[in-house]
Amino acid sequence: MPRLADHNQRRRAITDAARDVVARDGLTGATFQSVAAQAGISVRLVQYYFGTKEAFLRATHEAVVADAGARFSRRLAELGAAAPREVVGAILSELLPTEDGRRREALVLNAFHAAALRGDENARAAALGPARFLTELVADQLRQAKGIGPDDDAGGRGQDAILDARLVVAAAAGLTQAVLADPASAEESAELLDRLLDRFFDA
Amino acid sequence: MPRLADHNQRRRAITDAARDVVARDGLTGATFQSVAAQAGISVRLVQYYFGTKEAFLRATHEAVVADAGARFSRRLAELGAAAPREVVGAILSELLPTEDGRRREALVLNAFHAAALRGDENARAAALGPARFLTELVADQLRQAKGIGPDDDAGGRGQDAILDARLVVAAAAGLTQAVLADPASAEESAELLDRLLDRFFDA
Repeated sequence: MPRLADHNQRRRAITDAARDVVARDGLTGATFQSVAAQAGISVRLVQYYFGTKEAFLRATHEAVVADAGARFSRRLAELGAAAPREVVGAILSELLPTEDGRRREALVLNAFHAAALRGDENARAAALGPARFLTELVADQLRQAKGIGPDDDAGGRGQDAILDARLVVAAAAGLTQAVLADPASAEESAELLDRLLDRFFDA
Repeated sequence: MPRLADHNQRRRAITDAARDVVARDGLTGATFQSVAAQAGISVRLVQYYFGTKEAFLRATHEAVVADAGARFSRRLAELGAAAPREVVGAILSELLPTEDGRRREALVLNAFHAAALRGDENARAAALGPARFLTELVADQLRQAKGIGPDDDAGGRGQDAILDARLVVAAAAGLTQAVLADPASAEESAELLDRLLDRFFDA
């Protein structure tokens, strides 16, 4: 009977391996065989820790989302009481797959996202979680930048902040896809993100 | 030996069936068996028209892109000499998966796009084609709206039009993804697209 720490470590090693396989070959490529080979362990051991392919894929998705969430939280804590424009710029920059690890992360999240879009209502609703979180964060910062309280509608400007936040998050998501398709455009996309925020924060 | 018309019709019936399978089950789900079942023909007949799974998937991708391109061209022809803001609004609205056929189209294009992102440089470059086409179209209309000639840099405003066009296309792509994840947001996304264009065309 393995100790709990070993157990968690082993599960983590398997989901890390599954993440690498999905980044390289998509969800199609992730099988007990390919994940075991990637982790350098036996198929039986993967089966011991995860009974089904669905189980290790779900755990892998959860691990990737948890890692990205932790990265965002650290970045937010570092920013402390920075200006709204700076907070939004820093957080949305974290989305852009400008280096290898983040590129792999974006590919994996993309693969799970695409599968969720073909899924039922629950799967689609779960896929919306990160966008909703980001939209609320951006709307909050837009309200702060314009001196609008969180529950203060201020003649429709509170609602305007939400609509603008949706556009900012949609554009950031689109830029992320552009960098995935053309890694050479990473620097330019960071500049485009700046240009976008200029428009929404200074208007 | 089938006549050429029959041949093309049969190939089309197969790629139509493959399109339905990919929209429902992703690229993973598209096999000789599933496509033959969907088309209501034998596996051998699919194999006769397309020797490999790669061949029918490539033909399916090409058919979906050609259909979308034809739809865009028809819409552009209908618009004739409409105002730049109106042209861009109409074309980008065509992207939003606001009804069932367009939703299926977007899911299928998404699936092929995600696979291309994991592919080699050529696959990724091909995936960028539609975004490049749209970016040039939007930049062109922005220049017309601001009275800048196609080769006239006009103190950097020609370059500004390209950067703004990239942001507009990125935001439209992001909104498309949002509607796929939450079909109930279709109408709201159309309004957001309007709001976005207000910012870029009236500034």
